[in-house]
Amino acid sequence: MKKSIFILINLILIFSGTIQSQNIDSLQISKIFSTALKDNEGYHALYDLCKHAGKRISGSPLADTAVNRMSVWLENWGADTVWLQECMVPHWVRGEKEEAKIISSVLKMNLSVPICALGMSIGTPSNGIKGEIIEVYGMGELKNLNPADIKGKLVFYNGPMPPETIFTFNAYGHTVGQRWASAMEAAKYGAIGVVVRSVASHIDSHPHTGSMGYSDTIPKIPSVAISTEAAELLSASLKKDKNLQFWFKTSCQTLPDVKSHNVIAEIKGSKYPNEVIVVGGHLDAWDMAEGAHDDGAGVVHSMEVIRLFKALGIQPQRTIRVVLFMNEENGTRGAKAYAEWAKKSGEKHIAAIESDAGGFTPRGFTLDCSDAEKYYLRSKFAPVLSYFGVGDFSRDGGGADVGYLKDICPLISDLSPDSQRYFDHHHSELDVFEEVNDRELEMGSAAVASFVYLLDKYGNGMSRTNSAEDD
Amino acid sequence: MKKSIFILINLILIFSGTIQSQNIDSLQISKIFSTALKDNEGYHALYDLCKHAGKRISGSPLADTAVNRMSVWLENWGADTVWLQECMVPHWVRGEKEEAKIISSVLKMNLSVPICALGMSIGTPSNGIKGEIIEVYGMGELKNLNPADIKGKLVFYNGPMPPETIFTFNAYGHTVGQRWASAMEAAKYGAIGVVVRSVASHIDSHPHTGSMGYSDTIPKIPSVAISTEAAELLSASLKKDKNLQFWFKTSCQTLPDVKSHNVIAEIKGSKYPNEVIVVGGHLDAWDMAEGAHDDGAGVVHSMEVIRLFKALGIQPQRTIRVVLFMNEENGTRGAKAYAEWAKKSGEKHIAAIESDAGGFTPRGFTLDCSDAEKYYLRSKFAPVLSYFGVGDFSRDGGGADVGYLKDICPLISDLSPDSQRYFDHHHSELDVFEEVNDRELEMGSAAVASFVYLLDKYGNGMSRTNSAEDD
Repeated sequence: MKKSIFILINLILIFSGTIQSQNIDSLQISKIFSTALKDNEGYHALYDLCKHAGKRISGSPLADTAVNRMSVWLENWGADTVWLQECMVPHWVRGEKEEAKIISSVLKMNLSVPICALGMSIGTPSNGIKGEIIEVYGMGELKNLNPADIKGKLVFYNGPMPPETIFTFNAYGHTVGQRWASAMEAAKYGAIGVVVRSVASHIDSHPHTGSMGYSDTIPKIPSVAISTEAAELLSASLKKDKNLQFWFKTSCQTLPDVKSHNVIAEIKGSKYPNEVIVVGGHLDAWDMAEGAHDDGAGVVHSMEVIRLFKALGIQPQRTIRVVLFMNEENGTRGAKAYAEWAKKSGEKHIAAIESDAGGFTPRGFTLDCSDAEKYYLRSKFAPVLSYFGVGDFSRDGGGADVGYLKDICPLISDLSPDSQRYFDHHHSELDVFEEVNDRELEMGSAAVASFVYLLDKYGNGMSRTNSAEDD
Repeated sequence: MKKSIFILINLILIFSGTIQSQNIDSLQISKIFSTALKDNEGYHALYDLCKHAGKRISGSPLADTAVNRMSVWLENWGADTVWLQECMVPHWVRGEKEEAKIISSVLKMNLSVPICALGMSIGTPSNGIKGEIIEVYGMGELKNLNPADIKGKLVFYNGPMPPETIFTFNAYGHTVGQRWASAMEAAKYGAIGVVVRSVASHIDSHPHTGSMGYSDTIPKIPSVAISTEAAELLSASLKKDKNLQFWFKTSCQTLPDVKSHNVIAEIKGSKYPNEVIVVGGHLDAWDMAEGAHDDGAGVVHSMEVIRLFKALGIQPQRTIRVVLFMNEENGTRGAKAYAEWAKKSGEKHIAAIESDAGGFTPRGFTLDCSDAEKYYLRSKFAPVLSYFGVGDFSRDGGGADVGYLKDICPLISDLSPDSQRYFDHHHSELDVFEEVNDRELEMGSAAVASFVYLLDKYGNGMSRTNSAEDD
């Protein structure tokens, strides 16, 4: 009962403290949402990015195009400053046509199936690699097999994303390990290559790429993703002919690192210019399609904070800084470069918000911060944003790029859009502009701008002394 | 302050009353969501409906196909009874190819533009109708014009859906009046036809149909919808040549009423068989595409309540009745037939839930009921469903079909999915199976089944004496 009374007292405090400011903030936030939805400017910027710099993998000429084009949008939208921050990035190239076949004389099968090399994998010899294939459903299963049965063969990791997990990023987290680490595990047992079921939420014919890793102490073997549909077929075929052969050919390779850039733009704070709110997405994308949801949407969400502030004449007290990070997909070199620079800058980072979960209807924000900070944001900000459907601050975590700021920034947060469709497109040829709905995209921009607006006005929970409330 | 204390006392009551039952219910509701997402059965049923009974407008052979096919799914899913309830329905047919042109010698223009007849409109003479065209932005504007300037001309109603309205059904409500009533208004002033901007949220080349109305006391004139893109072009062209001519040809007509059916299926209640929870969507669809979101999704959401209860072995205390209503789009004759029958049935309807807002990620339920009932559902059910993202019970209203039960049923409610994309597809050739995401669809089925589960277990606010809590 004591606990109940404590909770009730807290509820009283929340109740009386927020009602008045909520009304005023709701009016301004309404304007942010209206402007985003009416102007649709972010949607046009996304079109430019997707159609003129589609396959903008780190180190590619299209990545440079993306840097240049997005800089122009930021200048045109009225950023006080726009500059490029140098970083060296990996340069992995996919090479020529990738091919794979299931071959079985028992099943009278010589069937081409859709695959793609996983990012950072080595390629195969020019005639490909062929072998018997052993199916497992996840990491760690190989240790239960006879090592002699693995040596010289291919390993097929067929663990699906669990469909019953409602928040699909959790299902992704559950599964993505086999994409990242399976080549290392299989090579330990002498396998010659791995075939990984695409980490995807829909059963279809599109393979999904994504980063994989090697260790310096383990032989490097080629690693490919196979479409979910073909994975089911391969699995069914293995049940009928466990000695069938799988063949695949890739010609990917890693070239020397090249120079690239983060794009950084800001509005200088009028009152606390040394206090910085970072908002960012990543500018690079896999080379399969257009990186529309991953992460064209996040790029636009971030850039539109500046556009919406300028369009509405909102002069922030604190410095609002947009960072379009290079190389999130296969190295996070841009994030590391920015964090290194930020630590020496003498500034005070009060919040860093990332959008890298697609251009779907926003539901809320994840939080990586102290309990006190969470309490402050959930009780103070969530009720204001709830009206706009963005009041879910219940999830923890966040920040593949902005996470590098964790030791200098008390609040790390991700925009959390509806997650149901994200892994249908993710890292595949389906991630194109046409799959982004204009209203859903603009709702995301408005959500991020609104959160930044509140953070600028009130500070985070830890910097409340510098807040509008106390002026 | 007194008000605050009152609210706090209520909060204590909510707090202590729900914690325990929430845990148990959450487990069962988790199973409902898991089963829906894993099995994907509703998605297969939607495929069948869309691909084998796509243009199932009331009175058409495809509407009969829909009745027969959905009855089979309900039988296969284990409904205790499935029967057809007769109703007479309007029989409007679109006829042959519809055409329209903007003709201007000033602009050297003789351009075909995409239109479609509005539902229930009369057709034009076989050579079409042609005339000068007067642009207005909504109902009531004609009274400000000189009647002589309208007589013998066409009227172009170009009011857009307001993009800044976040909940798109509100924007639709704001705009749809000009689709329904403009032929009546324009005819009063002697206009010969109306061209209505499609009630749609995206600027593209697809016209959107929908019902329009006539009055017995006003001449009937043909009415067509023009695509949003063509509406913008027509408007721009009129600014350059206000005397341009618009021509269109349609051959739609209304034939005599024909016999059709609602499909009704149920699981008989074990304890209170005479207390009925109705859940329904509408089986008819416009003749433009496949009626996937409108209302194939609602049909599936409703039918899956039976499937999920049977799959999980949930025996309801009350009778769960699925009603697939015929003729929502242009007459609601199925809804009227069911309501008439229900009033004489001697049963007690405790809740009627409808799904007719698309197969998008569910967010909550609208409520049309007493304030006490709202308070009960918001405090008792919303917290349980919040975990699944379906806790928004804040909107009022609901029930195009189940609304006819209002005077015998204390709770009318609609599933409220995310609304951002709905009016991109609605009533147009874009409303096809491929535009429905399987996970979003199944989340809707699970949401409806979960709400029905709670209503069956606890009753609505008004029937709490018959609830699990008091057993």
